[in-house]
Amino acid sequence: MSDTIKCKEVEYKANVLIEALPYIQKFKGKIVVIKYGGSAMVDSELKENVMKNVALLKSVGMLPVIVHGGGNEISKWSKYKGLESEFYKGLRVTDAETMEIAEMVLGSVNKGLVGYMESMGVKAVGLSGKDGFTIEVTKKYVDGKDIGFVGDIIKINTDLIYTLLNNGYIPVICPIGMDKDYETYNINADEAAGAIAVALEAEKLAFLTDTEGFYLDFDDKSSLISRISVDEAEKLIEEGKIEGGMLPKIQNCVSAVKGGVKRVHILDGRKLHSILLEIFTNKGIGTLIYRSEEIL
Amino acid sequence: MSDTIKCKEVEYKANVLIEALPYIQKFKGKIVVIKYGGSAMVDSELKENVMKNVALLKSVGMLPVIVHGGGNEISKWSKYKGLESEFYKGLRVTDAETMEIAEMVLGSVNKGLVGYMESMGVKAVGLSGKDGFTIEVTKKYVDGKDIGFVGDIIKINTDLIYTLLNNGYIPVICPIGMDKDYETYNINADEAAGAIAVALEAEKLAFLTDTEGFYLDFDDKSSLISRISVDEAEKLIEEGKIEGGMLPKIQNCVSAVKGGVKRVHILDGRKLHSILLEIFTNKGIGTLIYRSEEIL
Amino acid sequence: MSDTIKCKEVEYKANVLIEALPYIQKFKGKIVVIKYGGSAMVDSELKENVMKNVALLKSVGMLPVIVHGGGNEISKWSKYKGLESEFYKGLRVTDAETMEIAEMVLGSVNKGLVGYMESMGVKAVGLSGKDGFTIEVTKKYVDGKDIGFVGDIIKINTDLIYTLLNNGYIPVICPIGMDKDYETYNINADEAAGAIAVALEAEKLAFLTDTEGFYLDFDDKSSLISRISVDEAEKLIEEGKIEGGMLPKIQNCVSAVKGGVKRVHILDGRKLHSILLEIFTNKGIGTLIYRSEEIL
Amino acid sequence: MSDTIKCKEVEYKANVLIEALPYIQKFKGKIVVIKYGGSAMVDSELKENVMKNVALLKSVGMLPVIVHGGGNEISKWSKYKGLESEFYKGLRVTDAETMEIAEMVLGSVNKGLVGYMESMGVKAVGLSGKDGFTIEVTKKYVDGKDIGFVGDIIKINTDLIYTLLNNGYIPVICPIGMDKDYETYNINADEAAGAIAVALEAEKLAFLTDTEGFYLDFDDKSSLISRISVDEAEKLIEEGKIEGGMLPKIQNCVSAVKGGVKRVHILDGRKLHSILLEIFTNKGIGTLIYRSEEIL
Amino acid sequence: MSDTIKCKEVEYKANVLIEALPYIQKFKGKIVVIKYGGSAMVDSELKENVMKNVALLKSVGMLPVIVHGGGNEISKWSKYKGLESEFYKGLRVTDAETMEIAEMVLGSVNKGLVGYMESMGVKAVGLSGKDGFTIEVTKKYVDGKDIGFVGDIIKINTDLIYTLLNNGYIPVICPIGMDKDYETYNINADEAAGAIAVALEAEKLAFLTDTEGFYLDFDDKSSLISRISVDEAEKLIEEGKIEGGMLPKIQNCVSAVKGGVKRVHILDGRKLHSILLEIFTNKGIGTLIYRSEEIL
Amino acid sequence: MSDTIKCKEVEYKANVLIEALPYIQKFKGKIVVIKYGGSAMVDSELKENVMKNVALLKSVGMLPVIVHGGGNEISKWSKYKGLESEFYKGLRVTDAETMEIAEMVLGSVNKGLVGYMESMGVKAVGLSGKDGFTIEVTKKYVDGKDIGFVGDIIKINTDLIYTLLNNGYIPVICPIGMDKDYETYNINADEAAGAIAVALEAEKLAFLTDTEGFYLDFDDKSSLISRISVDEAEKLIEEGKIEGGMLPKIQNCVSAVKGGVKRVHILDGRKLHSILLEIFTNKGIGTLIYRSEEIL
Repeated sequence: MSDTIKCKEVEYKANVLIEALPYIQKFKGKIVVIKYGGSAMVDSELKENVMKNVALLKSVGMLPVIVHGGGNEISKWSKYKGLESEFYKGLRVTDAETMEIAEMVLGSVNKGLVGYMESMGVKAVGLSGKDGFTIEVTKKYVDGKDIGFVGDIIKINTDLIYTLLNNGYIPVICPIGMDKDYETYNINADEAAGAIAVALEAEKLAFLTDTEGFYLDFDDKSSLISRISVDEAEKLIEEGKIEGGMLPKIQNCVSAVKGGVKRVHILDGRKLHSILLEIFTNKGIGTLIYRSEEIL
Repeated sequence: MSDTIKCKEVEYKANVLIEALPYIQKFKGKIVVIKYGGSAMVDSELKENVMKNVALLKSVGMLPVIVHGGGNEISKWSKYKGLESEFYKGLRVTDAETMEIAEMVLGSVNKGLVGYMESMGVKAVGLSGKDGFTIEVTKKYVDGKDIGFVGDIIKINTDLIYTLLNNGYIPVICPIGMDKDYETYNINADEAAGAIAVALEAEKLAFLTDTEGFYLDFDDKSSLISRISVDEAEKLIEEGKIEGGMLPKIQNCVSAVKGGVKRVHILDGRKLHSILLEIFTNKGIGTLIYRSEEIL
Repeated sequence: MSDTIKCKEVEYKANVLIEALPYIQKFKGKIVVIKYGGSAMVDSELKENVMKNVALLKSVGMLPVIVHGGGNEISKWSKYKGLESEFYKGLRVTDAETMEIAEMVLGSVNKGLVGYMESMGVKAVGLSGKDGFTIEVTKKYVDGKDIGFVGDIIKINTDLIYTLLNNGYIPVICPIGMDKDYETYNINADEAAGAIAVALEAEKLAFLTDTEGFYLDFDDKSSLISRISVDEAEKLIEEGKIEGGMLPKIQNCVSAVKGGVKRVHILDGRKLHSILLEIFTNKGIGTLIYRSEEIL
Repeated sequence: MSDTIKCKEVEYKANVLIEALPYIQKFKGKIVVIKYGGSAMVDSELKENVMKNVALLKSVGMLPVIVHGGGNEISKWSKYKGLESEFYKGLRVTDAETMEIAEMVLGSVNKGLVGYMESMGVKAVGLSGKDGFTIEVTKKYVDGKDIGFVGDIIKINTDLIYTLLNNGYIPVICPIGMDKDYETYNINADEAAGAIAVALEAEKLAFLTDTEGFYLDFDDKSSLISRISVDEAEKLIEEGKIEGGMLPKIQNCVSAVKGGVKRVHILDGRKLHSILLEIFTNKGIGTLIYRSEEIL
Repeated sequence: MSDTIKCKEVEYKANVLIEALPYIQKFKGKIVVIKYGGSAMVDSELKENVMKNVALLKSVGMLPVIVHGGGNEISKWSKYKGLESEFYKGLRVTDAETMEIAEMVLGSVNKGLVGYMESMGVKAVGLSGKDGFTIEVTKKYVDGKDIGFVGDIIKINTDLIYTLLNNGYIPVICPIGMDKDYETYNINADEAAGAIAVALEAEKLAFLTDTEGFYLDFDDKSSLISRISVDEAEKLIEEGKIEGGMLPKIQNCVSAVKGGVKRVHILDGRKLHSILLEIFTNKGIGTLIYRSEEIL
Repeated sequence: MSDTIKCKEVEYKANVLIEALPYIQKFKGKIVVIKYGGSAMVDSELKENVMKNVALLKSVGMLPVIVHGGGNEISKWSKYKGLESEFYKGLRVTDAETMEIAEMVLGSVNKGLVGYMESMGVKAVGLSGKDGFTIEVTKKYVDGKDIGFVGDIIKINTDLIYTLLNNGYIPVICPIGMDKDYETYNINADEAAGAIAVALEAEKLAFLTDTEGFYLDFDDKSSLISRISVDEAEKLIEEGKIEGGMLPKIQNCVSAVKGGVKRVHILDGRKLHSILLEIFTNKGIGTLIYRSEEIL
């Protein structure tokens, strides 16, 4: 490459950094909760990419908090022990043995993420909702049906999370909680992320998913919604316009915004840098659910 | 029970509390590292008892730090996955698959202990050596032999432990570390407890074991040593008077005292309240290894 | 004693400590004001016992504050100087000379208690209401009658008390105050204890008295009241059912609860460990006056 | 008074304040220990004057610490109780009864001074050496003779004094201490002031006395020494040139300077404002004992 | 001078200091904003005198904040550059070139004052309203007329001022601000002082002027008003009884008091020590504007 | 632009940010002193660019400190006042009038830079060495010749700079100081930057110059030195191989490194982003002077 071209490239790179300046200033010291799951957790290139994205957010002064799932792995290990995975309305039916496996697997995924972040020079601590009794739940009944050790969150105790954030650590949280009798429960990771973001009054809550965002009609790629106010989203729910798979996700987003989170994003975790792009550019990617009183 | 007897009993209880006063004052704010393992971790009555002991230490102002193993469970889960457990000179030969299982199992034990402590009203956080890169290791070779992902500790980073202690949490640590390339390693729990106690300049390091203490001759119950200075212990080692199984344990104790820990105790984890009795009475139980310059 | 019995005893003692755990946790960091007087201040065994009780409360993390009287001693020293002790409705008529003696005697008692506590390994500081102008009074008139330098408390300045508590000292306070012209006044010790407990929003206020508690009919030992809500107590006062000697004491307790103290106790200072038993057991001893909205 | 004269006077006053500026700046935040006793404690005009002087030092940012005696009053109260005052080499022979009186009297004087200071708008706290075990002593023997509860200071614990200074209080200390068995002892006030000044590394230690300063020949008023280095003072002591009454005082001053106090002053407590004049003017009054390496 | 007279003089000086005590105590830690300008800034004796006055306020614990102008100097430097000074209703018409000169001149005056204060042993920092964006303005229009870069204050950002005060510095502020587009503007110094005093909730705001105070009739020296409540002052304004030159000054004082400043003073900067006399004596000098609810 | 290309571009930008990550982490919390002058201060595009570079450094967590000159402007304003600019060995001969102008001009440049930074969302404060007596000098003599108010730095007082850094402000410093008599002096800006960097133990000191770096032979563009250890630089000086104009600059760099600054850079201020490129890439630009013991 000629020197002139190299010079141009270098200058171009500096311009990119300069362009990031207002975003860095805007989000300095703000809490960003990231629900990490799906392909972005399975594909190793995507995984490394997410880790780097999070490390960058932290390094320029934001306060990322990671909430992750561990889906596939739980089924895999259940099989080793001769158990079959059973689901009811999208939730894993969780008997005592499955719960034990789930806790093991989620713990392993959790510490794996922590190690990954440490390798990128950011300090991280892996938590379950048991640590500092961070997540208190009560048994969940779906349509009155008992599906075992699956919990509904009734309280997030933010003390430990704040202790870690204030001391420079990224909290990496797996969705396990305890009820008032200190029994262990599995929790839907999306719900956990939402409840934590609300409790921390987060600036942003981003879901890394395996879709490009929220489609009104999943089969019509042109129906992707870039931005929707929480009022509009509620109206769609009421009118029954949101189809099955997407419904709980959108409901969860709506709850988060109504609970105090400023902006909720549904991002495509299969794309490189989706987190960075969302934060550092003014081009909307994925779907944004925002407060109705906010003027975009 | 007659009122008079009840009254006597109540008064007696108050006297017990009063007797504890000087010990409470002496150890206030002092760090006590407890290596938790063996029967005390398997038997549920013993387990509850240990948890209560630790909760009491914390509640009267000491700073307990728990380091635990998970031995049996690792073998059990290895078997589910069709792996055989192999040992070399007392250390588990740890290939990648075994390491994965060990991390899962230790993580599960770890969070189980945390939940137990929370149920007793003390705040706890479960860590592995990956969190905050607390334990840095290098690959261990035994007699030049490669036994897989088994680590030698080269550094304890105390930042995270102190952050938790200063904020009122009991750190519960499982013996997993990373090397400089962020690979995961299994660590002998006794070694981990010793290294952590040294790094924290602990007042006490107590090993909960399945023996009454250190016998010069294991078959002769009368050879139990109550107290031994570190110099005397070293002399016994040099003279080859300590038999196989006990040797690494005693060496570990000696290293801890020489590294700066004030007193190291080998306690019988099969006895109820062994921790409390050691701390709150002046009757020696188990074996004490102390600094040679200390006057007993 | 045989080893087995000794072992049982030791284990029993440990159990006593464990039983205290929930109480220690419950009252950690809570302020407990103790009015110290009567036999418990005269009898040397009782005195040592009270000191130990207080030292234990402090050592397990509570924040005791002592308020004491000095009754008999004042009369004794007055006699040396040729003065006669005169009382009006239970209050010492206090001319300038008597006031001088009272201040000397209370100061001496005060520093004596401080020395005693220091000898038990707890840090203490003796205060009168002059120090840091902690107690501001105005001249008290009883039925319009001038009884000399006897003060009504109009303000407790808590700055100095909090400075001492925050730095680990037990404040030991004698009931002397100043009016706005910095004249010295004697104060009823029960009133001082009540006002200080209210100002500190104390968790508990305990009066060490020479009775077993509050009797509806002093001559009928079976009429001892274990627990009474503040509303019920007020009703008894209104109905004139509380006899002379007890009336001001109960009124003082009622004021304290209504002023914000959570629970007020009338304890028998003649019994060993009455303070400890009240705090560390769930057996009511003496009389408890509690907030009407509290559910026992 | 004519307006012009009034104006001149007012301007003159302002000039006086301005002249004080460099002294205020120089001593800001510096500890000044004042031994208060003699006429300045008996005469009410002098007393008020000293109190105002101390209040001013405090108000412009210095940190005064008062140490006082109570001589005459102790003898007076001893007499009431039918005891005779006996002295040996200038020290009060102190049996148990006398000690009790001394503690009462000193405590009363102590709180009296505290009240006086509070009346001038400065916060003060009265301490004896028992509070926070501030003064630890051992029994003093003079020429091998047992003179009762008279103590030699072996340790000043500065924690409580610093807690009070850091929170804006003037510590007012009476010379009572405890030995290691928590027995109460009387201490020579000059010795207490010296030991406290050394322990606090005071900038200045000022003795308010009933002389104009240190005379080489007490009968020759022209032999008053204005300034003397600690080396010169020691030489005079060695050469036996200091007469009886003055000897212990000068020895005490020498100890203080050698122990780290920067400057020690012997001031005439019978003169109004002697403290202020010493601090706020560059005219030497009384006698200054200074470090030999200091260049005046 | 005879010794006796010298002694009297010294004692007199000490009395002056003692008289200042209650004022020192009253204003300790209180913010006093001083508008510095006029003769007191031109005459070198007056200037030194003001600097010493301010140094003394700071040294005895008050928190002075200086706001200054630079009038004559701006005209002088404008002339060097060939510009003519033009005024409209008392405000300098400020084109871009004049603004550049004004910023230079005010900056120079500013750092000159800082150097002066440092020479008196007090720490000072010179600010313009640009530093930390302390003063935000919008373009001022007088009767709709554009007079260039003259600003109306819309916001005082107190962060930087408090940072400096909390770290022991005297802020010295020149009246320059920026609008929301970061353009530089000149501000009337009286307005700046008033707005800063209001934002800091100052105890006092003192204007050093070239008059003795506020005259109802400037030609009648006997019409000087010593004290006037803000209500009375407003009434005079409404009734049109305040003449031209004085009107904006009095309006500014009224705004300050209504904005929360406790007392505003118009002082004669041509008299030595006018600041000290105002603070340290109870003789009114100049004119005091006070809150109507205050009882003098 | 097609969507795919846009997408690629966006991804490319994200990669640029990720590449910056290790540099951001490496320099977080580190002090970087930038000597700002020459073309970069005159050309408005370059100026804006430098301001943005500095704002970015600050926003990602570094602690930039700016030291600037004001050369051309001083000559310009001198001329307005009819003064001629005279130089001796590269230093401006500075009589009292010229000093007055220099202070005005530097102050104006200073606040201009502050305003610029504020407009970019970073907080800044403009200082001269008079503020907080930050720069103490003594009169400089060049070859024994008196060149007026030109100062040699003898002390940097870092208190004020640290106060500002710790509170989030960028200090912008102009090279003016005072001697011990508080006289104002002009200082060479390069010397000021070097002394400040040494006093702050800066990580980096960067000189923005009007050359590409340090040429061994200025006429031979290929003689540009990219990196040179301080030992090598000193050797070149000793051997007389550095020509006139460059000599004082290199000597200044050598002093800075020997005084404790880790790395000193001579950068080309005429190139856009030279600061960013130096910090965020591993391509050497300009000339680096480094510690001899450092391994590159």
